[in-house]
Amino acid sequence: MSGDESLIDELLAGEHRALARVITKIENRSPGYRDLVSRLHEHTGRAQVVGITGSPGAGKSTLVDKMAATYRERGETVGVIAIDPSSPYTGGAVLGDRIRMASNVGDMDVFFRSMSARGSLGGLSTSTTDAVKALDAFGKDRIIVETVGAGQNEVDIVRMADTVAVLVPPGSGDDVQMLKAGILEIADVFVVNKADLDGADRTVKELREMVHMRDASPMAGHHGAGAGPSGIDDGDDEDERQPPIVETVAKTGEGVDELLSVLADHAEWLEATGERDARARRRYADEIRTLLRADSAALVEEELEARGGLEGYVDGVVAKETDPYSVADEILAPVAEAVRERRDRRQD
Amino acid sequence: MSGDESLIDELLAGEHRALARVITKIENRSPGYRDLVSRLHEHTGRAQVVGITGSPGAGKSTLVDKMAATYRERGETVGVIAIDPSSPYTGGAVLGDRIRMASNVGDMDVFFRSMSARGSLGGLSTSTTDAVKALDAFGKDRIIVETVGAGQNEVDIVRMADTVAVLVPPGSGDDVQMLKAGILEIADVFVVNKADLDGADRTVKELREMVHMRDASPMAGHHGAGAGPSGIDDGDDEDERQPPIVETVAKTGEGVDELLSVLADHAEWLEATGERDARARRRYADEIRTLLRADSAALVEEELEARGGLEGYVDGVVAKETDPYSVADEILAPVAEAVRERRDRRQD
Repeated sequence: MSGDESLIDELLAGEHRALARVITKIENRSPGYRDLVSRLHEHTGRAQVVGITGSPGAGKSTLVDKMAATYRERGETVGVIAIDPSSPYTGGAVLGDRIRMASNVGDMDVFFRSMSARGSLGGLSTSTTDAVKALDAFGKDRIIVETVGAGQNEVDIVRMADTVAVLVPPGSGDDVQMLKAGILEIADVFVVNKADLDGADRTVKELREMVHMRDASPMAGHHGAGAGPSGIDDGDDEDERQPPIVETVAKTGEGVDELLSVLADHAEWLEATGERDARARRRYADEIRTLLRADSAALVEEELEARGGLEGYVDGVVAKETDPYSVADEILAPVAEAVRERRDRRQD
Repeated sequence: MSGDESLIDELLAGEHRALARVITKIENRSPGYRDLVSRLHEHTGRAQVVGITGSPGAGKSTLVDKMAATYRERGETVGVIAIDPSSPYTGGAVLGDRIRMASNVGDMDVFFRSMSARGSLGGLSTSTTDAVKALDAFGKDRIIVETVGAGQNEVDIVRMADTVAVLVPPGSGDDVQMLKAGILEIADVFVVNKADLDGADRTVKELREMVHMRDASPMAGHHGAGAGPSGIDDGDDEDERQPPIVETVAKTGEGVDELLSVLADHAEWLEATGERDARARRRYADEIRTLLRADSAALVEEELEARGGLEGYVDGVVAKETDPYSVADEILAPVAEAVRERRDRRQD
């Protein structure tokens, strides 16, 4: 039995150390990590995966901690993946509170892990998806993926959740504006956190109007993963539902029970309408496409290396002897030809 | 002479209609657009390209209009590309003010074009780069690329500018926070617009502190395109400069002259230090890599089609007979083999 095989066995047997090691291998793309994830796949599909996103300062960490604690009180096991929005440029971590789950230290049934951006093409969203598979195969009942909802990256990441909750801090007209650019469409549930602050009522009202406007628009129903790169259509819009708006005060725990019950309702709705399966299909299609892109990019990189790297080509472009499109054609034309020749041979 | 060849000739002869048609072909990826851009390349390199980014409401449009008008008063020609931050999900345009340059209507030397996101991999940044080439080859003296500085997409887009100006609205502690996530590193110039509003002084002060902190950090000098996907190192940090902070009131035009002179200073600095050439090299390397990625993704798509599409594979993943990694391997392993075989034959 290979080391990785016994690692999987230990993970499946409920050993947290094995779980931690598997996620580390996933995060570092250690040799053999692909096989590990392949083998995890058949053990997945049981957990409820919730994505939590929202702008910095919305109170995500505190809310996620409270959610995790509440699930635990109910006897359920929890895994948390916090996505660290470190800049792709500096590699540094903005999130400085990796040890914030101190209140849960020793309670390994809340398995907490933060993962950071590496700037690689589709890298973080693949790592997150894979880490969630590890938690799911391990047997965690609830998995929470927490990201800062700023850009496309975060949208890609939370889309792998069954249910996406978007946190909106009160009195943040700007934030509600920002939501329009991608986040609104993926929200299954809105959470107005810090609901004890001034402006919370207005924010709830604004959200309600926005949700209403969305449903009145011709694009209603085409939110979420359906319009994504999978290219698989949402199909019928009839089972669309308006995202509920929940008010919480994470610091005191107020509203957390209600949030969990809204999330449970959504999970039931997903199951009852077949939407859970539909989302899983879209997610798998996205996963495959993302892997194909990353793997073919690696193949191109290898070809480029074999040709002595980019520098020589850049020299030619600077000297105006060639240009970027001609360079791309020069490198890829033979690849395309090889692929087509091979395909023809296969089909003969 | 093909239609496209005469189109290029007309563009080079200064016909705005030809310029507009070329940019439309670029935006729509019309047949032959690659050849068009290839042929433009040798005529580029003269224009000063300024990228303007900043959060919604920072006053970018008004400022860009004023900058364009001021350049025109000085007898210089101007091209403006405004990137429309439409959601990749809805395909709808947020920017509703495409006709806002009405004050310049009839003055075709301010050539204004808005381009919208299409959600395709690297698509918008490639289209923008190509459109800038068209404006540059046409002979525009100044080219302004305006984007909403929210996510990675925008960062990718403004990186193709010689000089990047980041707009910060006053009194926006949150915005200054947001800047940390990628935008700060690419700023050559900061503009505090609406400088007549309360809070402008504080914003200037906060920016100054942040610029200072950046330069004190071990990562100083590794901002900008240098740490990007090109993989080419910035080299020596000695010619780093602190981004100046300019205060403007776009509505009245206050500070616009100073901004233009700061931008001109930056252009001179780029030239004098050799940084202009270094940035051009990084940009070309990025362009080539982006094209290679997009083209190889298209090749994979073609292979997938030849295999009857994704759906069958997704069925297998749902049934747990296979998993996304195994599917990717199955599709790409023969491609990789074909490429390597061909490479070996070439090297024999």
